[in-house]
Amino acid sequence: MRHLLSTGDLSRDEALLVLDTAAELAQVSGRSVKKLPTLRGRTVVNLFYEDSTRTRTSFELAAKRLSADVVNFSAKGSSVSKGESLKDTALTLQAMGADGVVVRHSASGAAHRLAEWVDGAVLNAGDGTHEHPTQALLDVFTMRERLGRLDGLRVAIVGDVLHSRVARSNVLLLHTLGAEVTLVAPPTLVPVSVHTWPCAVSYDLDAVLPKSDVVMLLRVQAERMHDAFFPTAREYSRRYGLDRERFARMQDDAIVMHPGPMVRGMEISAEVADSARTTVNEQVANGVSVRMAVLYLLLGGS
Amino acid sequence: MRHLLSTGDLSRDEALLVLDTAAELAQVSGRSVKKLPTLRGRTVVNLFYEDSTRTRTSFELAAKRLSADVVNFSAKGSSVSKGESLKDTALTLQAMGADGVVVRHSASGAAHRLAEWVDGAVLNAGDGTHEHPTQALLDVFTMRERLGRLDGLRVAIVGDVLHSRVARSNVLLLHTLGAEVTLVAPPTLVPVSVHTWPCAVSYDLDAVLPKSDVVMLLRVQAERMHDAFFPTAREYSRRYGLDRERFARMQDDAIVMHPGPMVRGMEISAEVADSARTTVNEQVANGVSVRMAVLYLLLGGS
Amino acid sequence: MRHLLSTGDLSRDEALLVLDTAAELAQVSGRSVKKLPTLRGRTVVNLFYEDSTRTRTSFELAAKRLSADVVNFSAKGSSVSKGESLKDTALTLQAMGADGVVVRHSASGAAHRLAEWVDGAVLNAGDGTHEHPTQALLDVFTMRERLGRLDGLRVAIVGDVLHSRVARSNVLLLHTLGAEVTLVAPPTLVPVSVHTWPCAVSYDLDAVLPKSDVVMLLRVQAERMHDAFFPTAREYSRRYGLDRERFARMQDDAIVMHPGPMVRGMEISAEVADSARTTVNEQVANGVSVRMAVLYLLLGGS
Repeated sequence: MRHLLSTGDLSRDEALLVLDTAAELAQVSGRSVKKLPTLRGRTVVNLFYEDSTRTRTSFELAAKRLSADVVNFSAKGSSVSKGESLKDTALTLQAMGADGVVVRHSASGAAHRLAEWVDGAVLNAGDGTHEHPTQALLDVFTMRERLGRLDGLRVAIVGDVLHSRVARSNVLLLHTLGAEVTLVAPPTLVPVSVHTWPCAVSYDLDAVLPKSDVVMLLRVQAERMHDAFFPTAREYSRRYGLDRERFARMQDDAIVMHPGPMVRGMEISAEVADSARTTVNEQVANGVSVRMAVLYLLLGGS
Repeated sequence: MRHLLSTGDLSRDEALLVLDTAAELAQVSGRSVKKLPTLRGRTVVNLFYEDSTRTRTSFELAAKRLSADVVNFSAKGSSVSKGESLKDTALTLQAMGADGVVVRHSASGAAHRLAEWVDGAVLNAGDGTHEHPTQALLDVFTMRERLGRLDGLRVAIVGDVLHSRVARSNVLLLHTLGAEVTLVAPPTLVPVSVHTWPCAVSYDLDAVLPKSDVVMLLRVQAERMHDAFFPTAREYSRRYGLDRERFARMQDDAIVMHPGPMVRGMEISAEVADSARTTVNEQVANGVSVRMAVLYLLLGGS
Repeated sequence: MRHLLSTGDLSRDEALLVLDTAAELAQVSGRSVKKLPTLRGRTVVNLFYEDSTRTRTSFELAAKRLSADVVNFSAKGSSVSKGESLKDTALTLQAMGADGVVVRHSASGAAHRLAEWVDGAVLNAGDGTHEHPTQALLDVFTMRERLGRLDGLRVAIVGDVLHSRVARSNVLLLHTLGAEVTLVAPPTLVPVSVHTWPCAVSYDLDAVLPKSDVVMLLRVQAERMHDAFFPTAREYSRRYGLDRERFARMQDDAIVMHPGPMVRGMEISAEVADSARTTVNEQVANGVSVRMAVLYLLLGGS
């Protein structure tokens, strides 16, 4: 592993190595020693072309707990906005000695291109509607921690799959690790290429719910609600929102996941959001451990 | 002390403990050893819903001098602006392992609410027109350093009390520590509830000046100058501005305080602003020590 | 040396000391030990009134590699935008204990004024159209590394000299170090005062090219392209752009420099930009070393 661009690049063994390393780091940094000297003297650059305080903060904390130096290179107000190309920015960061570049970009494929230009490790923190691999790793980490296994696990991913990098990264990773994924979405929000994905598709949440060990809700992006292909908010909530009734029809030990932030009353009711079987905050906590693991594995070597 | 939300929560002993700790830290970090290892491995999050580079920087420096990791979680461009609730943000920060959250918010009471949701310490860095406790602590620290005592000290707080969190935090803290406070303001800029505050009220600066050991000016907020209840700039300056003539009528060892930034020519004349008896820059310097003390006392335990 | 405000202030010995120190630091930090404890406990404030992610990041990395604490004090959204004067900001930073202030400002002379008000070291990171001394130092460092000498070196600086702080800083520094500079620009983009500068002036790039060891291109600022005195983009590119034909007429070992980011197709063709004799990325890398050297020399003493 030199970069983390797509969960599709990860072999079963590599994925498990990340998860196991994260579990170890979570244990160590949960104790009195919260700061590890592992990446002392290494430089991690957060290169965010889109705002994402949560993801940026999670990577920043992960890097700092490993004693790396972190620099936030916001694209706003930088020479980027004066027309600098991604390539020139990449070469600049490389010249400055970045050992790792965490990149968030609105264009699918941006992280891959970056990886062609820099010697350091590239960590994809979300590229367009393409992938968000650390999100999938933290999701899978959370499933394994909660349910004790991944093999044979039945996972429903519900919502705007068409625009979701989280969905794609999860489908690929869960498939590699032996889980069975069903995407649940309105027909207009399923990608045309979905038949090439290693998963099933359903338009009927109520049929899928009772058979699922994990129900992963995607965030409804308000900015999409006026798209012609998007159902109205009320219709979406009625057909795909996880409310008390639907929650009651889930299996007793099934869990509800959400990448956050949740829109209560839209894709999830407030009651379900606050349930002990909803893992949103665990996912956030695990995100730091998983990102520590990835940074450690990619940058830790000498 | 688990949080620092209001100076009204502080007992006399607690307040003195903060001041004494700050004095010690100021002495230590004023010498060759500027960096202390006390909070190594701890994470402090600056959660600022309103811009305040001065306060944010002061807290950031204080935390770094104690070797804490600091993350700036600006609400701008974050999921907050996508509609995330304060509660979800709080739970996210908590999940990420924040040991302390420094919060600035436009809503009075925001810091209190935050404290209900997180396990870590909450430090109120200004909530609406409610409180700004570290500002009051650094003000009181400065008075004690300059004048050698707090008990019986006569303090005039002059200006837009109605919208000032600084005024309220100072009144409560100074009362606890035995000082006598008189608020001086135009009638329209005094809160209706002021009769419940432990202080006197006057509309006549010239009557109060000669009897004061400390004259604390509040910042005139330009954005309020067009409020119906606000005097015109010229009238305000004429009746409540501290110019050379008024300064001359103060006691010889009385000091002038201001939280900064000053608007020279409005609430203070340039000459008075630059006087050796005006403590603005000492207040800034003491702010770092006081915030180190608070962070140390709230986060330092294991 | 107490501050670094202008390359004109540097004696030959001081300039060489910076270059030699940078060379040593580049060697040390290029090896396994990337982090030096030299400035541990010192505080560097980046005070940027203009956005410049590249320069800010370079200084931030340099300071962190020397173990200093770095605080970014952006003028946007700070009390600066509420009308605080540069002086009050300076006194605030000083009160907070800044050992060094790195300042970028749109007004020529801002760094000099700042230096009158603070005890700490002031590092000019670009003031209006006046100076950008660390840029010149890294340029000269790059020339010496590539070509082995500075004395007698013939350097052409090409482009919008009128608005360029980079040009002025380079002219002064190169003159001090024995190089011969020729400015090449359209007549309307040469400052009126140029006859007082220690350099030659030409309007004819093609005449200067074959006689130059170094061709330094200045960035064309798109925002100036609509100025009455600026040639059209097409005309500029035709007369002053470095394309393949012109590049071929340069001496075999002559190098092409650019402060970045380059506008390919405008002041430089894509082919020349990517040539092995173009040093843009080396300049960026050397920038970190040079800034480490300056920080070390100005702040390193006890």
